[in-house]
Amino acid sequence: MQLLEDKILSEGRVLPGSILKVDSFLNHQIDVELMAKVGEEFARYFKDKNITRVVTVESSGIAPAVFTALHMGVPVVFARKKLSLTLNDGLVTTEVNSYTKGEKNTIAVSRDYIKPEDNILIIDDFLAKGEVIRGLIDITKQIGANIAGVGIVIEKAFQNGRKYVEEENIPILSLVRIESLEDNKIKLLK
Amino acid sequence: MQLLEDKILSEGRVLPGSILKVDSFLNHQIDVELMAKVGEEFARYFKDKNITRVVTVESSGIAPAVFTALHMGVPVVFARKKLSLTLNDGLVTTEVNSYTKGEKNTIAVSRDYIKPEDNILIIDDFLAKGEVIRGLIDITKQIGANIAGVGIVIEKAFQNGRKYVEEENIPILSLVRIESLEDNKIKLLK
Repeated sequence: MQLLEDKILSEGRVLPGSILKVDSFLNHQIDVELMAKVGEEFARYFKDKNITRVVTVESSGIAPAVFTALHMGVPVVFARKKLSLTLNDGLVTTEVNSYTKGEKNTIAVSRDYIKPEDNILIIDDFLAKGEVIRGLIDITKQIGANIAGVGIVIEKAFQNGRKYVEEENIPILSLVRIESLEDNKIKLLK
Repeated sequence: MQLLEDKILSEGRVLPGSILKVDSFLNHQIDVELMAKVGEEFARYFKDKNITRVVTVESSGIAPAVFTALHMGVPVVFARKKLSLTLNDGLVTTEVNSYTKGEKNTIAVSRDYIKPEDNILIIDDFLAKGEVIRGLIDITKQIGANIAGVGIVIEKAFQNGRKYVEEENIPILSLVRIESLEDNKIKLLK
């Protein structure tokens, strides 16, 4: 996706530890017009998959997920990292490590909003080591739902999180794939 | 907003402690078509305020905020509750209490994305005791930006968080106001 590639190359910053900072349009400030186009792209690619729900994890996945879901005419479910007084029964949980936050999180989804008969499209902002995707695949299996696709805004291809998706034979679309962040340079995989 | 009132009355559940659970369309699952209409409503109401940025707090404020911002042609900035390796410099922070999560959070915004010259519209899912709004007003004052409006999806009018907005003479629109949740019944303020 050219528009997204241009944005990453012009506004992305490489931080120590192979971290790509894109706070100007995705992880802190949201470029909503760009996210609307991102959502349109995912919806077009997965249009024949009979998706019944778009699933993501709070917080940075929510913007691309809602625009994808709007184009598909289905609801979003966002897995929660923090339990609250309202999210309290019928929960399915799994553990995921967050590298950028240096902590382990329990992510949780209610059985009220993902059903065994669902055909799910997972949307997330980043695919790096695949911790979140692995967690969402685990939750979906516990429920017995089908994952019909995975859509990723930015994939750090050198960190190989894609293997968890491929092992399950799930179709995946990453809008931009990063080949390397070495020497503070963003090199795209074409 | 009739559509939202109907949704709250049909799907909302009252939990102990005056908590309104609306996980089916706002706080866990997101009804994106409804949120698109919510965003349209906020954008229409505040259209003459020369808004330059829509500001919210992760996570449940993001969906109504992105649709509002899309209609206004401006970006969203979501304040973060957790610091990450990418959110690390030029931060403005404040402390807020979360009643439904039973904890105190530091919320943070980067000075890169809210500027002294900004004219801000704050959007949030709930206004209850006003902790989050008070925090966002504090952050905005530290930066020196102007808050031109506050848009709330559901206000628990009996908890009086509105006072923080009124003390600052900021225009506020709550799409639905709840008068009481006593005896497990949702009573709307008309």
